Amino acid sequence: MTESNMATEMQRIVLARHIIGVPTPADFQLETLPIPALDDGQLLIANRFISCDPGTRSRLSPGASYAPPLKAGAMVDGFAVGEVLDSRHPRFAAGDLVMGTGWATHMVSGGRGYLSKIPDLGVPLSLWNGILGVPGMTAWFGLKRVANMQPGERVLVTSAAGPVGATAGQLAKLWGAAKVVGIAGGTEKCRWLVDECGFDDALDYKAADFDARFAEASADGWDVLFDNVGNASVDRALPVMRMKGRIVISGQVADYNLTPQDAPGIHHTREFIGKRLRMEGLVVFDDLPQFPAAQAELAALILAGSVKYREEIFDGLASLPAAFCGLFTGQSFGRRLIRL
Amino acid sequence: MTESNMATEMQRIVLARHIIGVPTPADFQLETLPIPALDDGQLLIANRFISCDPGTRSRLSPGASYAPPLKAGAMVDGFAVGEVLDSRHPRFAAGDLVMGTGWATHMVSGGRGYLSKIPDLGVPLSLWNGILGVPGMTAWFGLKRVANMQPGERVLVTSAAGPVGATAGQLAKLWGAAKVVGIAGGTEKCRWLVDECGFDDALDYKAADFDARFAEASADGWDVLFDNVGNASVDRALPVMRMKGRIVISGQVADYNLTPQDAPGIHHTREFIGKRLRMEGLVVFDDLPQFPAAQAELAALILAGSVKYREEIFDGLASLPAAFCGLFTGQSFGRRLIRL
Repeated sequence: MTESNMATEMQRIVLARHIIGVPTPADFQLETLPIPALDDGQLLIANRFISCDPGTRSRLSPGASYAPPLKAGAMVDGFAVGEVLDSRHPRFAAGDLVMGTGWATHMVSGGRGYLSKIPDLGVPLSLWNGILGVPGMTAWFGLKRVANMQPGERVLVTSAAGPVGATAGQLAKLWGAAKVVGIAGGTEKCRWLVDECGFDDALDYKAADFDARFAEASADGWDVLFDNVGNASVDRALPVMRMKGRIVISGQVADYNLTPQDAPGIHHTREFIGKRLRMEGLVVFDDLPQFPAAQAELAALILAGSVKYREEIFDGLASLPAAFCGLFTGQSFGRRLIRL
Repeated sequence: MTESNMATEMQRIVLARHIIGVPTPADFQLETLPIPALDDGQLLIANRFISCDPGTRSRLSPGASYAPPLKAGAMVDGFAVGEVLDSRHPRFAAGDLVMGTGWATHMVSGGRGYLSKIPDLGVPLSLWNGILGVPGMTAWFGLKRVANMQPGERVLVTSAAGPVGATAGQLAKLWGAAKVVGIAGGTEKCRWLVDECGFDDALDYKAADFDARFAEASADGWDVLFDNVGNASVDRALPVMRMKGRIVISGQVADYNLTPQDAPGIHHTREFIGKRLRMEGLVVFDDLPQFPAAQAELAALILAGSVKYREEIFDGLASLPAAFCGLFTGQSFGRRLIRL
């Protein structure tokens, strides 16, 4: 770090107003402010890649969300990877690469919580805010810990071309699933899942014959539903779950913009009794201590070409609100990142 | 057994027609037929107490049920306790008391499945088709295995004055729950739960102030919901579940008469993610090998006066259809049994 690259100002994105329904860029506001001086125990991070996560939406409603709602005027605290510019924290030094948070060019951190140093595993930095970050770890621990998937099982993945779903499906295959089928929107995504990611099949929910193809693919049922979509998606699968099936509630992209009252409900719950089904939600931070081992294993699989991923890169913090809002139109295809 | 009490005819109740909506006695038919002769390996049972179980309803619909639907014209195979009249089976002898099935005065059995000898634990026979039978074991293993309830936890029980709910709530207290609250219909049931069964509180869902009382009782949330009612009941509790809460889907008395499409849905599923909730259904026959130990422990608690129960006794097989249909009006209070 030299004086010349030492910026004095930073930018960040705040929630302009609580959002009801589908988010629009006008719900956010870009602010410029001075970079504060560091206190003892703090470090300054320049973010390099900020991610657009559907789950962030759940904190932008006026209070009907599962996580504490963000206050209007507060910075949106999505995920990021960056470089330490300056540190008065004993565990971090200038030049360290870190996983952190913040829809901002710069972050001052106390070094706690999610913040962690990125080891050099020979993969591009952006992957640490993608397949090696929250979505990849959600796939890993959702499948391993929550679903406790066993070799020979049949696995259905929804929003399968997204970074969580695509990783979950590929891990299921690598871990010995007898059959892995994804549901995604459009032929391009479905082709990628089968041709590149090795899914046994992919069903296009936008296709006219989807219901028939879903019934056909489900003829032998599912031991695991890894769901990233929401109630209607879970409800569709319940009647075709197998005995002792597990449903992982990983995300609810179709429901985040709705109030619980307006969201479709799960109706086929009697299946839970006869089939002894188990449905469980996860927040992957519970598995934080196990991240490094999983990341090392997953990075090796990526470098060996055994696990594929896709990214959609946008440039500049100002592009973030529109990129985030685009998550809910079904158009995104891969991990959506903002490069700074 | 003497020749004089050796009947030659038996009666049974068959499903006259598949049921849509609320069952009525006209949906059933009483038949008289000769008692068949025993083959090798068979035994003849005279049923003494037949039970009315809400869960039986789920098999009487035209196919939209979680268990294989009963065929029209087939005997309804509810639970029963009886006495062996004659046996050509090596493990059973005349005079043995057994837990079995069948809406019938007599049953010929091959000795497999649920059928088991009743040990002499010094409790009335009827209890083996109640608190020591399927409902009691559902409470026991639902709370112990499925919910994995821990001392100090807060437990909410619905349909709490029923044989499953009342037992679950009392076991929760005995096993160290910090707080056990039941939901039931009417002041008489609620008073019994608090005064006799030791529930910390009981909420009358028919009372005008129920919503306020529910909110007040739920101020600190619930670690375990032991639900016997159905989707609306689960949905009401989801927002007040605590972190890592467990929802036991034990029964769905409010939904059995509805198609999944017509049943209310579970909408507050986003709570599953943020709170890492787990919802699981059970069929207690999975725990059959563990029944004897649980029954011995529970019988001792009953004899010591530590666990209370209620029964509603009806006389004669002909009273069974109306008694069963009455389960869905909210009027039953205790284990509903037919004495033969």
